[in-house]
Amino acid sequence: MGQRSGCPINLSVEILGDRWSLVILRDMMFGGYRSFREILTHSREGIASNILASRLKMLLREGLVTKAGDPHHKQKSIYSLTEKSIALVPVMVQLGAWGRRFLPVSEELTIRAQLLEEGGPQMWEEFMEELRHIHLGAPVTKAGPTVSDRLQAAYEEVVAKKGP
Amino acid sequence: MGQRSGCPINLSVEILGDRWSLVILRDMMFGGYRSFREILTHSREGIASNILASRLKMLLREGLVTKAGDPHHKQKSIYSLTEKSIALVPVMVQLGAWGRRFLPVSEELTIRAQLLEEGGPQMWEEFMEELRHIHLGAPVTKAGPTVSDRLQAAYEEVVAKKGP
Repeated sequence: MGQRSGCPINLSVEILGDRWSLVILRDMMFGGYRSFREILTHSREGIASNILASRLKMLLREGLVTKAGDPHHKQKSIYSLTEKSIALVPVMVQLGAWGRRFLPVSEELTIRAQLLEEGGPQMWEEFMEELRHIHLGAPVTKAGPTVSDRLQAAYEEVVAKKGP
Repeated sequence: MGQRSGCPINLSVEILGDRWSLVILRDMMFGGYRSFREILTHSREGIASNILASRLKMLLREGLVTKAGDPHHKQKSIYSLTEKSIALVPVMVQLGAWGRRFLPVSEELTIRAQLLEEGGPQMWEEFMEELRHIHLGAPVTKAGPTVSDRLQAAYEEVVAKKGP
């Protein structure tokens, strides 16, 4: 597939400009889902399995995820983020910030985006470090509650407050 | 069209997740193109006129552009950005930064992304103010060469250096 132009925004859109790729990467980043089945069954947007399969194939081809056998379950594969996809965290934050401001978001699904936006570049870098640890085996560089933990706790608090 | 979920990233992707919308908005923001014909004929990616028509229709419907008669040419329409699309500047910058780092960009098409990335949030805000002036009639708040002028000058310098 020839590229349409060498403009960085165009090239990014050529890879990420579809209705699912960023949503799948979001679930791997913020949901911690690593296997095909986990991503499929936790999808709030109800991704179809054939779409998920085709998008994961594209993400593999573009170097945004890697795939390996799960050491705990011989018949299962797990997907990992790469430096290339982890570097999309600031794009995710800005898209989330824009969505929060202009689109009809739901409270419980927006608290994480809000905290990341308010946390600024330092928090994004910390979150990327955690993803590098989980997905690339990089050493832990910081003690204390992780950004993931803090986002998850805030999400659960909003859900609890809303009641059943 | 029902929304898939109230997640801000998902909602943003539902609107912008295609191969052309962000590229059209980029041309309006950075190229200054305002009419259908200008956007079509200057498209480096060679957008087809039926695709451009359908994407502009969607951008109008979603409030990302408005359309009005051109006061200088009665038979022409010009499109304007809105606060909603001007607020996408930080998304553009982060997408451009990511593309610059990981994708095979061309030098002359990447200098503007580089300057904006290096300029940081203050330069993005200044650029958004200029777009508000041009597209929304907001007053000019700053004297001196505009961000647009500086980006264009840097682009022309790279093109001149590369020779014919």
